[in-house]
Amino acid sequence: MEGRKVVAWAAKDTSGIPSPYSFTLRKTGPEDVVFKVLYCGMDHTDLHQMRNEIHSTNYPLVPGHEVVGEVVELGSEVKKFKIGDMVGVGCIVGSCGECLSCKSNIDQYCNNRIFTYNGIYKDGRPTQGGFSSAMVVHQRFAVRIPEKLAPEQAAPLLCPGVTAYSPLKQFNGCGHKVFKAGFLGLGGVGHLGVLIAKAMEHHVTVISTSEKKREEALEHLRADAFLVSSNVAEMEEAVNSLDYILDTVPAVHPLQSYLPLLRVDGKLLSVGVAPKPLQFDAVDMILGKKTITGSFIGSMEETQEILDFWAEKGLSSMIEVVKMDYVNKAFERMERNDVRYRFMVDVSGNNLE
Amino acid sequence: MEGRKVVAWAAKDTSGIPSPYSFTLRKTGPEDVVFKVLYCGMDHTDLHQMRNEIHSTNYPLVPGHEVVGEVVELGSEVKKFKIGDMVGVGCIVGSCGECLSCKSNIDQYCNNRIFTYNGIYKDGRPTQGGFSSAMVVHQRFAVRIPEKLAPEQAAPLLCPGVTAYSPLKQFNGCGHKVFKAGFLGLGGVGHLGVLIAKAMEHHVTVISTSEKKREEALEHLRADAFLVSSNVAEMEEAVNSLDYILDTVPAVHPLQSYLPLLRVDGKLLSVGVAPKPLQFDAVDMILGKKTITGSFIGSMEETQEILDFWAEKGLSSMIEVVKMDYVNKAFERMERNDVRYRFMVDVSGNNLE
Repeated sequence: MEGRKVVAWAAKDTSGIPSPYSFTLRKTGPEDVVFKVLYCGMDHTDLHQMRNEIHSTNYPLVPGHEVVGEVVELGSEVKKFKIGDMVGVGCIVGSCGECLSCKSNIDQYCNNRIFTYNGIYKDGRPTQGGFSSAMVVHQRFAVRIPEKLAPEQAAPLLCPGVTAYSPLKQFNGCGHKVFKAGFLGLGGVGHLGVLIAKAMEHHVTVISTSEKKREEALEHLRADAFLVSSNVAEMEEAVNSLDYILDTVPAVHPLQSYLPLLRVDGKLLSVGVAPKPLQFDAVDMILGKKTITGSFIGSMEETQEILDFWAEKGLSSMIEVVKMDYVNKAFERMERNDVRYRFMVDVSGNNLE
Repeated sequence: MEGRKVVAWAAKDTSGIPSPYSFTLRKTGPEDVVFKVLYCGMDHTDLHQMRNEIHSTNYPLVPGHEVVGEVVELGSEVKKFKIGDMVGVGCIVGSCGECLSCKSNIDQYCNNRIFTYNGIYKDGRPTQGGFSSAMVVHQRFAVRIPEKLAPEQAAPLLCPGVTAYSPLKQFNGCGHKVFKAGFLGLGGVGHLGVLIAKAMEHHVTVISTSEKKREEALEHLRADAFLVSSNVAEMEEAVNSLDYILDTVPAVHPLQSYLPLLRVDGKLLSVGVAPKPLQFDAVDMILGKKTITGSFIGSMEETQEILDFWAEKGLSSMIEVVKMDYVNKAFERMERNDVRYRFMVDVSGNNLE
């Protein structure tokens, strides 16, 4: 027996241009949750995978890994949710459940994690993402959207939000210390990271290679300081001042220039996947007891935490809501950075069903 | 008024060859401890500084930064020691006392730390090391040698011992977990590190570029495993297995080859100062939540801890004790790695006074 029929938008070849596509979900298992998709965010990963530019892409491919919707059906053993609940799904929909990472509730590091789309589920079928009228997910990989939070505001937290939150949470509420934070890169993760750090009452410095982002950093994101990395005097003055730097730059960049900004025991939190090796100066690392540490998305637990944190602090990020049939135009505009900061596709508003 | 006259061995020019040299110590201050030197270790730092190969060297230069001796005089306010106590001095004899590092008792990271020799003390005079009949030191920078510990065994703990212990102590006695440890480099720090890790009941793998050190690692140091980094199959098998790697290699080496050996949340502890930038692969760091962290010597507190740990566990390292007038020969042999593992100069046995 098959599951329900859905209508989605899928890329069908390496042109990467999505168009309508119908398929059936898997039969709802005892721990599965089926939900009607309301909103789904988009980012460059979607684009790259639609074009077969990262992993080997299985077509047709339904992208979308920041998905929010309303529960319409529950497996027999699901106690965590009820019909009508608002739920979210991020980058991952499965893991082995057996390894140390799974047992430590950091399933994102499981070597057998299953990505939300372009993965192979346990039943052998390809996983498909959120640009779809409905989705089915094991309850372990669904989070609860807080009532106070608009669903379109919740969606970006499921990928970039938790990617920033996971490494930053260690600095949340440690006594009365005001942490001094640096941010390298103001894309999807960086911009949410600044908002999270400000809500944690950190002193936030945005570091950029040019003056272009000064207004954005100081006026729109309310950062406390802005530092241009080519300004030798400013950089010199900031030496040994930061407790951490969230580094979201997904390209090769000179860590030697940024590590000196960290104080003793300071941490560079690396979340931007540079395609080639990065370099650092061991002398500076050793004499300053500095740390470089990587972090990948966040756990399901942390995803729930950032949703609750966001609702509790009354935060909001800047998004542009568009209809489903605008998706090609939206990908085009995203590619030339013509969106502040993220497109949120109103999937249900387009009568996909 | 001047302090006491001492006889030492000093390098007098860039030839770096030490010869006898007399000078006077500073007048004993209220918190100063004067001790007769019994043993002093030597390492490559001594040699480089004697030859003006690292910092700008002020001649005459008395080397020696692993010094053990017997207290012969105390300042009026010293309560910590009494005459006849056995004390040790390591790499540092002063710090500002005001900065966050000093206030956190990690004085080795103070930007105004004063090195044991080739530094300038607070009175404006050059600091001179342990190849001297006696030394004077502020009580904060002297540690107590446990009674159970032979003074010549204590000396190497004051530099390489604490350099290994400081980053390893975080893994000491955390519940019942057996940590899986890797060691890169089997020099002064690495060899003591293996002994410390074994005493902490870790499972120790020595990683080397060649087969040459297999016997040394497994037979003499009682490591549990030996891994040759050029053996692709062995390296592949060890992927994701180690909780930490103590990296003592003071040269450029490919971290991309070693980071995959760490399991999720594993740490590469870097203590070997490579003269050129090191490279790592951000993808591996991020997907595996891996960390590279630097560590410099250890604090005075940690120096005391490793001495007590060493005595309590009944450990001993292999040293070769030589007389003071053998020092030139010893430096020569050390330079061609003809010593297992460290020369300990019997300073008092040569009638320096």
